[in-house]
Amino acid sequence: MAEPDPLEGVAELDLQRAARRGYPEAVYCEGKTPDQVRAIAEAVRDADQGEKPGGATLFTRCSDDHLDVLSHVFSDAAIDETARLVAWPPAPPAPVGGPVVVVCAGTSDLPVAREALLTAAYLGRHCELVVDVGVAGLHRILARLPVLRAARVIVVVAGMDGALPSVVAGLVSAPVVAVPTSVGYGAAFGGIAPLLAMLNACAPGVAVVNIDNGYGAGHLAAQIAAPAASSD
Amino acid sequence: MAEPDPLEGVAELDLQRAARRGYPEAVYCEGKTPDQVRAIAEAVRDADQGEKPGGATLFTRCSDDHLDVLSHVFSDAAIDETARLVAWPPAPPAPVGGPVVVVCAGTSDLPVAREALLTAAYLGRHCELVVDVGVAGLHRILARLPVLRAARVIVVVAGMDGALPSVVAGLVSAPVVAVPTSVGYGAAFGGIAPLLAMLNACAPGVAVVNIDNGYGAGHLAAQIAAPAASSD
Amino acid sequence: MAEPDPLEGVAELDLQRAARRGYPEAVYCEGKTPDQVRAIAEAVRDADQGEKPGGATLFTRCSDDHLDVLSHVFSDAAIDETARLVAWPPAPPAPVGGPVVVVCAGTSDLPVAREALLTAAYLGRHCELVVDVGVAGLHRILARLPVLRAARVIVVVAGMDGALPSVVAGLVSAPVVAVPTSVGYGAAFGGIAPLLAMLNACAPGVAVVNIDNGYGAGHLAAQIAAPAASSD
Amino acid sequence: MAEPDPLEGVAELDLQRAARRGYPEAVYCEGKTPDQVRAIAEAVRDADQGEKPGGATLFTRCSDDHLDVLSHVFSDAAIDETARLVAWPPAPPAPVGGPVVVVCAGTSDLPVAREALLTAAYLGRHCELVVDVGVAGLHRILARLPVLRAARVIVVVAGMDGALPSVVAGLVSAPVVAVPTSVGYGAAFGGIAPLLAMLNACAPGVAVVNIDNGYGAGHLAAQIAAPAASSD
Amino acid sequence: MAEPDPLEGVAELDLQRAARRGYPEAVYCEGKTPDQVRAIAEAVRDADQGEKPGGATLFTRCSDDHLDVLSHVFSDAAIDETARLVAWPPAPPAPVGGPVVVVCAGTSDLPVAREALLTAAYLGRHCELVVDVGVAGLHRILARLPVLRAARVIVVVAGMDGALPSVVAGLVSAPVVAVPTSVGYGAAFGGIAPLLAMLNACAPGVAVVNIDNGYGAGHLAAQIAAPAASSD
Amino acid sequence: MAEPDPLEGVAELDLQRAARRGYPEAVYCEGKTPDQVRAIAEAVRDADQGEKPGGATLFTRCSDDHLDVLSHVFSDAAIDETARLVAWPPAPPAPVGGPVVVVCAGTSDLPVAREALLTAAYLGRHCELVVDVGVAGLHRILARLPVLRAARVIVVVAGMDGALPSVVAGLVSAPVVAVPTSVGYGAAFGGIAPLLAMLNACAPGVAVVNIDNGYGAGHLAAQIAAPAASSD
Amino acid sequence: MAEPDPLEGVAELDLQRAARRGYPEAVYCEGKTPDQVRAIAEAVRDADQGEKPGGATLFTRCSDDHLDVLSHVFSDAAIDETARLVAWPPAPPAPVGGPVVVVCAGTSDLPVAREALLTAAYLGRHCELVVDVGVAGLHRILARLPVLRAARVIVVVAGMDGALPSVVAGLVSAPVVAVPTSVGYGAAFGGIAPLLAMLNACAPGVAVVNIDNGYGAGHLAAQIAAPAASSD
Amino acid sequence: MAEPDPLEGVAELDLQRAARRGYPEAVYCEGKTPDQVRAIAEAVRDADQGEKPGGATLFTRCSDDHLDVLSHVFSDAAIDETARLVAWPPAPPAPVGGPVVVVCAGTSDLPVAREALLTAAYLGRHCELVVDVGVAGLHRILARLPVLRAARVIVVVAGMDGALPSVVAGLVSAPVVAVPTSVGYGAAFGGIAPLLAMLNACAPGVAVVNIDNGYGAGHLAAQIAAPAASSD
Repeated sequence: MAEPDPLEGVAELDLQRAARRGYPEAVYCEGKTPDQVRAIAEAVRDADQGEKPGGATLFTRCSDDHLDVLSHVFSDAAIDETARLVAWPPAPPAPVGGPVVVVCAGTSDLPVAREALLTAAYLGRHCELVVDVGVAGLHRILARLPVLRAARVIVVVAGMDGALPSVVAGLVSAPVVAVPTSVGYGAAFGGIAPLLAMLNACAPGVAVVNIDNGYGAGHLAAQIAAPAASSD
Repeated sequence: MAEPDPLEGVAELDLQRAARRGYPEAVYCEGKTPDQVRAIAEAVRDADQGEKPGGATLFTRCSDDHLDVLSHVFSDAAIDETARLVAWPPAPPAPVGGPVVVVCAGTSDLPVAREALLTAAYLGRHCELVVDVGVAGLHRILARLPVLRAARVIVVVAGMDGALPSVVAGLVSAPVVAVPTSVGYGAAFGGIAPLLAMLNACAPGVAVVNIDNGYGAGHLAAQIAAPAASSD
Repeated sequence: MAEPDPLEGVAELDLQRAARRGYPEAVYCEGKTPDQVRAIAEAVRDADQGEKPGGATLFTRCSDDHLDVLSHVFSDAAIDETARLVAWPPAPPAPVGGPVVVVCAGTSDLPVAREALLTAAYLGRHCELVVDVGVAGLHRILARLPVLRAARVIVVVAGMDGALPSVVAGLVSAPVVAVPTSVGYGAAFGGIAPLLAMLNACAPGVAVVNIDNGYGAGHLAAQIAAPAASSD
Repeated sequence: MAEPDPLEGVAELDLQRAARRGYPEAVYCEGKTPDQVRAIAEAVRDADQGEKPGGATLFTRCSDDHLDVLSHVFSDAAIDETARLVAWPPAPPAPVGGPVVVVCAGTSDLPVAREALLTAAYLGRHCELVVDVGVAGLHRILARLPVLRAARVIVVVAGMDGALPSVVAGLVSAPVVAVPTSVGYGAAFGGIAPLLAMLNACAPGVAVVNIDNGYGAGHLAAQIAAPAASSD
Repeated sequence: MAEPDPLEGVAELDLQRAARRGYPEAVYCEGKTPDQVRAIAEAVRDADQGEKPGGATLFTRCSDDHLDVLSHVFSDAAIDETARLVAWPPAPPAPVGGPVVVVCAGTSDLPVAREALLTAAYLGRHCELVVDVGVAGLHRILARLPVLRAARVIVVVAGMDGALPSVVAGLVSAPVVAVPTSVGYGAAFGGIAPLLAMLNACAPGVAVVNIDNGYGAGHLAAQIAAPAASSD
Repeated sequence: MAEPDPLEGVAELDLQRAARRGYPEAVYCEGKTPDQVRAIAEAVRDADQGEKPGGATLFTRCSDDHLDVLSHVFSDAAIDETARLVAWPPAPPAPVGGPVVVVCAGTSDLPVAREALLTAAYLGRHCELVVDVGVAGLHRILARLPVLRAARVIVVVAGMDGALPSVVAGLVSAPVVAVPTSVGYGAAFGGIAPLLAMLNACAPGVAVVNIDNGYGAGHLAAQIAAPAASSD
Repeated sequence: MAEPDPLEGVAELDLQRAARRGYPEAVYCEGKTPDQVRAIAEAVRDADQGEKPGGATLFTRCSDDHLDVLSHVFSDAAIDETARLVAWPPAPPAPVGGPVVVVCAGTSDLPVAREALLTAAYLGRHCELVVDVGVAGLHRILARLPVLRAARVIVVVAGMDGALPSVVAGLVSAPVVAVPTSVGYGAAFGGIAPLLAMLNACAPGVAVVNIDNGYGAGHLAAQIAAPAASSD
Repeated sequence: MAEPDPLEGVAELDLQRAARRGYPEAVYCEGKTPDQVRAIAEAVRDADQGEKPGGATLFTRCSDDHLDVLSHVFSDAAIDETARLVAWPPAPPAPVGGPVVVVCAGTSDLPVAREALLTAAYLGRHCELVVDVGVAGLHRILARLPVLRAARVIVVVAGMDGALPSVVAGLVSAPVVAVPTSVGYGAAFGGIAPLLAMLNACAPGVAVVNIDNGYGAGHLAAQIAAPAASSD
């Protein structure tokens, strides 16, 4: 039982995805061995970058071992340890389209919020982060109304009771992308409580992504806030 | 297999409960046959009422058949069709203790809210009802701050995302009794979504009762708002 | 226990919501009695409509009794029996913004899909419906690629395995709003199976609303496809 | 991607909460890095304490690393290793209001029970702890009836079958705050079994907080047992 | 597609089961059509009863239609409408072995409790029923201690919080068979709450059967209380 | 809002599926209105049947209304009321490939078992049905060993504890397709109990389909028992 | 916050339990710190053993640290590392009553099976262990019929599909105590699959204890097989 | 409490299983101690191999410790570290029957896919592996249609949304064995999301095995693709 060659029997890179969908592929590292991530990163590094419109390749949900491997493959990658995210090439594109605002209910939700923020930034949007504005102190979110109302789309990241998206959506006309987090304990059930609350948001205009899925939320926000096509 | 005599092998009335706990027993009608409810009601009616301090007997969660039976046993009962609740004798006691405010997120939550309101009233509290103040329009709940801040305890009844208790608890110093309702559909799962949200309320000072348990919430509120003993 | 007056202790209409959020309020009828719906409808009818920018009031999830009541209150309402939706005034606004495409996996998902379609149309978007294109016959969805790729946002409605949003999102650059339906049996668990599949969509760019929540999906799609503000 | 300054992009302290709600803010440490906790603790230490009525700041659910950080920031904090709780300043206020009794079913429930006890004490209540009185040996709880009946509110902490709150609530007239714990195994499901049992308590007068939420129970008990306002 | 002959392709009676296991077979009627139940009943009636030691055949969980069919097949069957149970021949055997006590927490649990009681009686045990002794009023169960302590086995039937088996098991040395019932609402989840509580009973000596499974509990109790073999 | 034309906006028939996959399409009727089923049936009837190799069209999970509609559209359809299945044209093809044996644990599982049996028969296999052989009486299944061991594939239909597939798979070398049914009550949870048991079958060689999915099991069995291609 | 004295505020030993219930108390070590277990063990060691009829004290679910502590407190304890159980004094009592047979489906279930076996032995029963007789190879269990049929009660320990109790109960007249184990993976869900299967056992005569609860099963078996009282 | 002898009280090898069922037994190592695995391996090694038709013994789900033990017992075993599988003797049999294709959605699903592949190969089938063909990029799976259509059976391994089996089954006439994996996070719930999706596959011809159960899928595929008997 010989070991397979690099990428043979492991992965098929979809380097044409940017051309097809307009956004580059990201590499989800969780569940991959450091060796698999290294092989993929080397293939990314060695590909003809001229074919890749749309920006940097993102490596998401990196463990410490993954970060270590990637910092060796890419000498100049951008690394965000809070978000467990690596981008290469390191520079995000110049922002176009509408502004994306990422709202974070509590400090413990910050890793997910930053993953969303960076993803949208690397997909070419102007982004702003608003932190620690949970509904237990309404004055905090009400003080940010001007920023919220200027957004083309708002990403709301919250754990525990997941009440913030309902409150935010009731205050603005922009769509809200809600991200439940696994922050909490007991009957939070690893994010089920805020997930269900968000799916049942009593204000219309809320859509939900997977628990802790900052990448997906940032990607979706970038799509929503994309520059209007001529037909719009 | 002869049928049992009335109450024999069916129920044991706990007419001394008011003396022991300070609050009279209630009869939970759901799951009982109309005949069983009739037998219990007749026993209540025929008991020596002089032994019963603390007010009327409540019959809760009555079906139409139960309401019909009870209106025959008691010629003068108070019947609330929205709350599916019957009280006999019909007059609530003169209120003592602190004020109880019942807050109801939406119109569909009204039956549960009224069950809580009436229960607390029949256990001797002054009660006030605030309706249709869901978090999707924050101005509605903020407009009621004076009423909320005057309460000794607040019962918050909400379905769907169950976000209202967190918001209310963050605005007041009184304890909040949260009642999830089965209002909603899909991922509301018959009240699981608001139940979990309330258990994970991000503001301290929130306790939760069973889904749709207006009676329990009203009872608890009456206990919390009971007149202060001399040792307090 | 006298019955409350109409709307007193029942509901607070939020007729200013269109001014505040840009979209009019909808009345969710499930869980309300026909009498409550009548009272609300009459209040809507009698309000000064000049204050209501943004279009018609929608009554959603109407039972047969609700439809009956509403057809009496409004002599000229638009009624869609498949979607269980009533709109008044009956004419949708002239469409602005980008095109919304609603994709429906199977015939049984049609009520939810039409609810989404009509909601987006009444909120002022140009809409198109694509039906019966489940992934078991890929040729059906592939044949619609031009329509899909012209959309500013795509609503995908599916029950059972909920696989269609992943496939659609992989083919286009527009954001996808996924609506799980309760269509299916056994381990579909009333929509849990497609809900989970959609939350775990392996293509980025998918957000999810509640099970059977056609209204929410249509509303969100209208917000996403809204005309670009000058800052975009 | 520069690291944010202390608290910038991490947290917003709500030092005015004591003025607004009457109770000081607590810092929930789980899910925060030791560096984040240090930054918050230093901000608490350096704030003008004259503005903070209502007592000490509590740091809850501290890991060993958190305890280490906090003992360095505060030279004189009170540290309870069983409850994983730190209080600063260390002295609880002089107790006012009614007595709080914390009842603990088993030895393994002790950390949660002590968290409740200390929270209520630091919020200004007189507290008493009753341990190891599970319902499998009824004589143990019956022997404590005088203490139970003197309480203004009783916190009952139990895992496994969660039967103790029903039994206690049936014996007293005070409200019961039930805390399910994650003590148990197998079909205890991390506290779901006692949580459900407590939500279905067959005695009225029981409200429930999140699994293992000693802090929330203590806070609520302090609110319930607060000195009666003049209007009561 | 011709209809199958009676019992052909429908059922295989196991008339020898009494000889093999010592207890006769019961016919679980739920999910069977009235015609199927009739065919089975006629086969039972026509079989050579001389081969059937151990007593009558029981038909359990009968709908009204089933009861109707069975009363026509057997002119002299014993029918218990509360327990939805039919026995034929109608006379239970003379009791042998130890006494079985069936304890029922509330009136609504009575159908399940009677199913257990009658099953054990028809399998040849002396049985006694104790009703309405929920833990919310401990004096009720404590008053029955002599009956409980005389039992060879105790069947405890309870819904809601399912706390009664723990309390009973802590008071006696006999084994306890706990039967959760679907009595309750909301977070009782059709019997899940008492089922979990009983599985986590904090007193040893409790075993659990399926929700509402009075038949199974009665059968098991009869086996446990069977006359001691010579080797015991 | 004009009603759509027949099939327009309702369904797209996939009449070429037999050519593409080798098996004809079936129409799943649950969730479709009688009018929708009628429109589809008429389209099936009017299509050029010469293009349809592989056998009859099946209509599955028919309600009484569906059966009524279909018996009007097709004067000569085969209708099985137990299986709620209609086939047209009525004659199954001459059987080819290996024998399919359908094993049914109890009488209540019969509708699902017959749906599997008829599906496989209409897809061209020789089928045999074995009923009422639950594991509580092992002699019943052991008596059928010759039939079981002659099968190319065995479909095992069982509810409750779902134990039969493990036992059967341990006795034969053929693959087993396990079908959990919703037969049972309480902790059977509508088929979850046997579903989980079958997924955890301790004998290898068991695959599982959805709860009550007789059609899927019969289809799969027909594929497994298909005549061997030349390359086999 | 001074540390509590040994046992003060930690535990109340119930040394009279043997006198009250006939069986000595066991110490459940999971969730207790090694220091707490040491304090309890020392109290047990130092108590007047003359008051303790019924046998040794058992320490169950011991971690390696617990085993270490206990081997220091008791120089002569009996330690079973597979069952994680310690008994002191080490000698089980002379067996009385009927024989207990413990049946174990697979090797991985052995720790739970041995916990049951040893518990019943230390409570004074004659016990026998039968291992590795899963239903995937029926010949293994059928070969043990004489042992099974001689038992007064059978404990069946199984994970995965939990099918063994149904099969065993169908073969004998003795009651079966079923113990689901957390052995398995994926959809075994930590023992939920066998738990549900056992609760739905299609043979009557099966009762279930908590997942992995060997102690509870052994205790119950000892009660069931206790010597018959004179009234039996 | 003496330790049992090797295999005594631990396991019963079923070396005749190959003769009885046609396939050799595998040893599931998870949950067994290294010592238990060693004892079993030595018994396998020392048995008379002449009695074992059908190929090598497989050891599945090996930890690093298990691999270490097995490499000592068998000097020449085949070890696959990705699949955590050991085979002895190391050579698979010459393939017979139809081709088995194993399709793997993503890189992280590879361990399960390889376990399926190797199992089918050691049971005597010709196998092919297709990797990284998730539905987010349909061109990848469409490019493999010739390989898929040549298969006698296809094993599809996927986590996250579990959409691949529906797509594959819709493209081919061979049966599909779907294997959900625990790859994913949040609402993937350890494999529940793909498990449910696969059970609800909208294309017929899909059967499901347990989460991560590569062995079971490979075994089943080998049975399905077995050489046709003369009766086929």
